[in-house]
Amino acid sequence: MGKQDTGIGLVGAGFMGRCHANAFRSVAGLFDLPLQPRLAILADASDDLAEKSAAALGFARGTSDWRALVSDPEVEIVAITAPNALHAPIALAAIAVGKTVYCEKPLSTTAESALAMTLAAEAAGVTTLVGFNFLRNPMIRLAREIIAGGEIGEITGFRGRHAENYMASPDAPHSFRTDPAGGGALADIGSHIVSMARYLVGPIAEVQADCRTIFPTRPVAPGSAERAPVEVDDMTHALVRFETGAAGSIEANWAATARHMDLSWEISGTKGALAFSQERMNELLLWSDRPGRSGYTRIDSGPAHPPYGAFCPAPGHHLGFNDLKVIEVAELLAAHAGGDNPGPDFREAYEVQRVIEAMQRSDRARGWVTL
Amino acid sequence: MGKQDTGIGLVGAGFMGRCHANAFRSVAGLFDLPLQPRLAILADASDDLAEKSAAALGFARGTSDWRALVSDPEVEIVAITAPNALHAPIALAAIAVGKTVYCEKPLSTTAESALAMTLAAEAAGVTTLVGFNFLRNPMIRLAREIIAGGEIGEITGFRGRHAENYMASPDAPHSFRTDPAGGGALADIGSHIVSMARYLVGPIAEVQADCRTIFPTRPVAPGSAERAPVEVDDMTHALVRFETGAAGSIEANWAATARHMDLSWEISGTKGALAFSQERMNELLLWSDRPGRSGYTRIDSGPAHPPYGAFCPAPGHHLGFNDLKVIEVAELLAAHAGGDNPGPDFREAYEVQRVIEAMQRSDRARGWVTL
Amino acid sequence: MGKQDTGIGLVGAGFMGRCHANAFRSVAGLFDLPLQPRLAILADASDDLAEKSAAALGFARGTSDWRALVSDPEVEIVAITAPNALHAPIALAAIAVGKTVYCEKPLSTTAESALAMTLAAEAAGVTTLVGFNFLRNPMIRLAREIIAGGEIGEITGFRGRHAENYMASPDAPHSFRTDPAGGGALADIGSHIVSMARYLVGPIAEVQADCRTIFPTRPVAPGSAERAPVEVDDMTHALVRFETGAAGSIEANWAATARHMDLSWEISGTKGALAFSQERMNELLLWSDRPGRSGYTRIDSGPAHPPYGAFCPAPGHHLGFNDLKVIEVAELLAAHAGGDNPGPDFREAYEVQRVIEAMQRSDRARGWVTL
Amino acid sequence: MGKQDTGIGLVGAGFMGRCHANAFRSVAGLFDLPLQPRLAILADASDDLAEKSAAALGFARGTSDWRALVSDPEVEIVAITAPNALHAPIALAAIAVGKTVYCEKPLSTTAESALAMTLAAEAAGVTTLVGFNFLRNPMIRLAREIIAGGEIGEITGFRGRHAENYMASPDAPHSFRTDPAGGGALADIGSHIVSMARYLVGPIAEVQADCRTIFPTRPVAPGSAERAPVEVDDMTHALVRFETGAAGSIEANWAATARHMDLSWEISGTKGALAFSQERMNELLLWSDRPGRSGYTRIDSGPAHPPYGAFCPAPGHHLGFNDLKVIEVAELLAAHAGGDNPGPDFREAYEVQRVIEAMQRSDRARGWVTL
Repeated sequence: MGKQDTGIGLVGAGFMGRCHANAFRSVAGLFDLPLQPRLAILADASDDLAEKSAAALGFARGTSDWRALVSDPEVEIVAITAPNALHAPIALAAIAVGKTVYCEKPLSTTAESALAMTLAAEAAGVTTLVGFNFLRNPMIRLAREIIAGGEIGEITGFRGRHAENYMASPDAPHSFRTDPAGGGALADIGSHIVSMARYLVGPIAEVQADCRTIFPTRPVAPGSAERAPVEVDDMTHALVRFETGAAGSIEANWAATARHMDLSWEISGTKGALAFSQERMNELLLWSDRPGRSGYTRIDSGPAHPPYGAFCPAPGHHLGFNDLKVIEVAELLAAHAGGDNPGPDFREAYEVQRVIEAMQRSDRARGWVTL
Repeated sequence: MGKQDTGIGLVGAGFMGRCHANAFRSVAGLFDLPLQPRLAILADASDDLAEKSAAALGFARGTSDWRALVSDPEVEIVAITAPNALHAPIALAAIAVGKTVYCEKPLSTTAESALAMTLAAEAAGVTTLVGFNFLRNPMIRLAREIIAGGEIGEITGFRGRHAENYMASPDAPHSFRTDPAGGGALADIGSHIVSMARYLVGPIAEVQADCRTIFPTRPVAPGSAERAPVEVDDMTHALVRFETGAAGSIEANWAATARHMDLSWEISGTKGALAFSQERMNELLLWSDRPGRSGYTRIDSGPAHPPYGAFCPAPGHHLGFNDLKVIEVAELLAAHAGGDNPGPDFREAYEVQRVIEAMQRSDRARGWVTL
Repeated sequence: MGKQDTGIGLVGAGFMGRCHANAFRSVAGLFDLPLQPRLAILADASDDLAEKSAAALGFARGTSDWRALVSDPEVEIVAITAPNALHAPIALAAIAVGKTVYCEKPLSTTAESALAMTLAAEAAGVTTLVGFNFLRNPMIRLAREIIAGGEIGEITGFRGRHAENYMASPDAPHSFRTDPAGGGALADIGSHIVSMARYLVGPIAEVQADCRTIFPTRPVAPGSAERAPVEVDDMTHALVRFETGAAGSIEANWAATARHMDLSWEISGTKGALAFSQERMNELLLWSDRPGRSGYTRIDSGPAHPPYGAFCPAPGHHLGFNDLKVIEVAELLAAHAGGDNPGPDFREAYEVQRVIEAMQRSDRARGWVTL
Repeated sequence: MGKQDTGIGLVGAGFMGRCHANAFRSVAGLFDLPLQPRLAILADASDDLAEKSAAALGFARGTSDWRALVSDPEVEIVAITAPNALHAPIALAAIAVGKTVYCEKPLSTTAESALAMTLAAEAAGVTTLVGFNFLRNPMIRLAREIIAGGEIGEITGFRGRHAENYMASPDAPHSFRTDPAGGGALADIGSHIVSMARYLVGPIAEVQADCRTIFPTRPVAPGSAERAPVEVDDMTHALVRFETGAAGSIEANWAATARHMDLSWEISGTKGALAFSQERMNELLLWSDRPGRSGYTRIDSGPAHPPYGAFCPAPGHHLGFNDLKVIEVAELLAAHAGGDNPGPDFREAYEVQRVIEAMQRSDRARGWVTL
């Protein structure tokens, strides 16, 4: 007798949709799961597209009707990789019929609707998970464990950023990313470093941010000569205070010319320190004090750092970006089967969004905002 | 109508077997392939084990009889991850019935049998591929392209090694790795750096090696107090001359205390240089000369370096170890469908093995050996 | 006929005094100078101490009376490494008699007195230089030249910090560094990163800072059990806007557990980027865009980067901390002899101090402060 | 009463002569020495040149007659930076009159004459020191102390090189460096890595080398169109066995295109490992094993690593190349005053030269050579 099948319904077949599909296909061969995911239905913009995507990504069938997908009894888990504005209606529909919901970040386009989604999920008692996949990195978990275990003492400082360069050119065009509803560097990638700051150091109490639009106009479409004003930030620098009293700074920047994926931070404690950059995602730096031997130790990821061993029995062989999504899906399935939900759940994603919005308000107010 | 199914038969379900299975499951969702792999049969040591592994890894059924698997009409491609001594009989059986053969390295336990396998495959005209998966790294391909395009001029020097620490303890026990038939650091991991040297710089003409056994005895089994003599090398240092005249050194070392995966090299040319380590597999260093600006440029892997884009549309997001196997399988399937075979095929694997054996002979002869 | 002698009078013989003395002794053998420094008089707290220090550091004689030193006709250049509160009276006395003044940073304990010193020096037309020695690094000059030449386009972002760990322990005692008049992490080391930001990116227009005292009390003296309140910041995080519109952040932190000398920054421009850390002071990272070859190039210091060649004819051999002081002294002597004064002069040091005080005000006001 | 003066006679005023002079001028202000060096006489090719150099470098007078310098009663220490072929006659003359001799490397042009110099010095009982200044680095001493203290267990492997690029161009001209008497990459820079290997791991028992001339001809002079054959190696790769049984490789390469100063090594032991490159001379990597925390710790140089503190009281501020020479001179003066001689003395320099010559012989013999 095999394990029980669990039907997956995926809404959206863009890059993130493919990423989800790949993770659902791979996970059972890598993790020892309580159940077996079955790729049931994929929803896309049209029936035709949906059928093609379903075939390409290994789903049994496709549909243009996400409402049908959500309510189909074959589907137990609804995975949402649709445009941000659709997250709320899809998730609320799925919650209404008691499905587990797995949603890409940002949870919604406003903190307000994210809160509504959170309250609905909590009232219905459904399992939720939001795709902050960078938190799944064994090195990030090791960092959290080191902090929680007191190895680096009390945390005093946090210096973090998420910097990429995909909008560094004035000719990078408008897209959903520059839509004032939910767009901008801070909302788009700042949410990753905010979620990581909370995951590692705890709740943020106060913020003060400077949101800057570098390029006042951008092409209305790729290659277009017509330009339209930009209403969102290209870069945000923020001061933060954590509830514990730790202080620090957070930057979100999609025009950081030299950076491909600098989701990075340094955390100082009274007894040690940690540093990390996603640009070297298989490494964690741990500082410890030994007379004449003090320094940062570069720890390479390996089987000593679960769940690395699910991918490879030998250390130093590297996990990749897609592997983080496989870990996320393994944890989703375990939570769906009744196990612990490691989160971030909808509530946590809402909290992240609150921080983002507080930063935006503080920029307009030119002063501190308390959360 | 979907793509044509191609039945895969996998012999062996250890770490590498799982790795193959995962790659075959993932590949169709990531690459645009001419055909669709179908996980048909998995062979393992017993029927029971084989059934369990087949279920876990997604194969339709299991068998304890690899001969049945090889001759089954459902199987078009035979993937071999069985113990090294079985590579030859399984591959020869598969060749005899005209199947495509995908074999883990080392191709066989001796260069002599590797040559026999090569000649049989060439006579039969079957497609072969050997699992030197580190060559599939987009950064390694970029290096080859840079060299082939003359960007760094004529190659003058090569300094390479494959260093790990899994046998660095005197209490690391005997296993297939220490079996005099095909074992030792040089055969086990030295083959990777030799294959990479050939891939990048070309054929090796002469070698002189120093094979050293660090620990004269090892436990007969994990945790055992009984120890037996070690007859293979723990580390080999070799001088090499390439056919082009380039000179250099190669090290194979499984007792390199600080190294998890230092499959690394520096290549000097008359106009530039390249450097790489698998410990940072998503980076390639390219040296170029500009007045006042000379230096190594660290290139991060990205969509500009095919087939990275099959995994992620954004640069700097990292491929992992398992992704290299997915690329390998994509190329295997394309070759099986009649496309180019990028290799390394059996003949190339035989050439690698010849170099390894020449090094072993030179150690015994205490002098240079010409290939 | 040798070069003309120029008498040096040094006030203070602590670490920085030794550093000055060493630089004045070394400089003539390394640089081709218009004149020859002669170590004339050293002033210290008592006659006895001054005599000993003079002998140890190679000065002709010592004195406890800095006023006598300043007015002595043998002294043409007055070098000030005395406690911060004495900078103003000594400098003003030297200016009054028309001497060249070489003063350690901070120029004074308040921006107000720094301005008075500046105006006095300008009125008297004397040459002044302030010891922001990290600006003398050939790699920093290369960075400035790259920016000024437009190689990285228009500057959009600056992310800088000066982080060390010498006060990271709650048991690091009170000293002049924690004196509310001129003390605190921001004043002590923040001035270095502010001066560098101005040197590379230009004037700062607006700031908003968060000054935090991590440890509310510290021992009153080394090893003492008695503790007294701390009134200065241990760490400051600040948002900055430059006059050009570039935005960024600046951190000053003497409790950054893992950092010995992280005076570091990344500067993003529309065409490229630069990064530097004093922890690897002989390296500059320059990012440039080439299809498939984009990345940070690590430039090692060498004779191509003046005045490195004064120290060593071969690249990659490293300058050290003390060499920066030798460069500073060479430039001081050239300016004294009538050449260009590369600065930073008193006015520039005053501007740095204005930024520091604006940050302190913004912290108290919890809002932006315009300079 | 001040300290006793000790007269220094320097033969040679090229780059290394300047370096010596600078060190002798600086040392007393940085180190607490038993005596005070006095720059007495400088010898150069002509009286005129010598006078000019003496004035520039701070010597009391100049001479074209090194024999007069050696026998002058004012000179107690003879420092030799003259061309290699003159090392023996100058040193022998100085030994004959009982002077302390401080000689640049290589000690002589052949091991045979180096032995004669060694025997003469030992018979006369004079103090000798040879300028292998890279051994003076506090990080190298820390490495030696770590090894000697057993922190990384028994040494099993050594992988070292000295690679630079100053002869990487086929148009780099002939010079003393390409003179068959004492020239070639192996003799010129290979001696540094050989001396370091001996300093850290101990005597070398056996070698096998491959010496390669990359460019068969070079211009006879800078910019000349006339080319003459090259009779020395551009790069040498060697296998080495230490007396302890440790095995490894050594490379000397002056055509390593991307390297400015890669005097580097990795040393593996049964309990840990160390790694170093002169390209980051203020850092030492120390590997230690802790469950889940294993990795290389990057130790930055600081006061915990004597004699760093003589230069700067704060860690991470960097020593430079010239500082190593100051340390060397401080130790020379202490040894001259009757203290311990840390070496390397003439005998050690002779042993290094023996290894170099054994490597050259092994290349010709195409087999191992026992020392």
